[in-house]
Amino acid sequence: MDDEMRPGEISVALPAEFDAGLYFIGRIRTPWSSRAECPRRGAHDGPLCRIEVDERWWPALRGLEGRRFIQALYFMHQARRDLLVQTPRGRETPLGTFALRSPVRPNPIASSVVQIEAIEHGTVIARGFDCMDGTPLIDIKPQD
Amino acid sequence: MDDEMRPGEISVALPAEFDAGLYFIGRIRTPWSSRAECPRRGAHDGPLCRIEVDERWWPALRGLEGRRFIQALYFMHQARRDLLVQTPRGRETPLGTFALRSPVRPNPIASSVVQIEAIEHGTVIARGFDCMDGTPLIDIKPQD
Repeated sequence: MDDEMRPGEISVALPAEFDAGLYFIGRIRTPWSSRAECPRRGAHDGPLCRIEVDERWWPALRGLEGRRFIQALYFMHQARRDLLVQTPRGRETPLGTFALRSPVRPNPIASSVVQIEAIEHGTVIARGFDCMDGTPLIDIKPQD
Repeated sequence: MDDEMRPGEISVALPAEFDAGLYFIGRIRTPWSSRAECPRRGAHDGPLCRIEVDERWWPALRGLEGRRFIQALYFMHQARRDLLVQTPRGRETPLGTFALRSPVRPNPIASSVVQIEAIEHGTVIARGFDCMDGTPLIDIKPQD
């Protein structure tokens, strides 16, 4: 986690307690082992990635066969959560966190629509991710 | 919370502990006070709803003015989390949870793209929601 502040950035004291809990239900395997290597946005002609769903949840994949796109939610577990205004890498002026798709946010949940290439034994092979190898999965939803 | 099981539904023992925590950062005010009243899917010509962001996070809205669409993430706090295969109201055959957008899922996070009508004093007025009045907000992201 990087605690450095850039000019114009604004942080806030986080609440003392969480209001709800998340289960990590699998991991996303990608070619990128550091945040610096990750693309700024996933692409449907990007490299093959693997969503490895934990065995407990495998029956929940029933019916995804034949679908082309899914929405994946995943948890950017290395991102700080206290910046209200920030200047991500590549931007010149600071902007509010809710006007950015940066991983730095109160609840660092990322959402991507990815293209399914195959589903086998609890693993969904898909293109379109932008995250580090090992990122925790929190949800899969069908996407029209 | 409804613990009844329909034919063909499959539940699972949930993990003993959560892996991460969520902050509720505001509430969504809608015309619907029970799940039965909610539309199955929000529409951009649906009724005006209000995203009331808690004051702590107001500076994070900077830069959203002028945008037409946002993606809102919210927490379906009344939904059970243990169904792997389910038959939602209106469906005939059971389907895996990850092949459905039902609120019943291991991490009951909903995602909707809503159309902004106005932003004033920490409140975003928007159309396109599908959830009960008072639903906890967990994130706002810009949507192209």
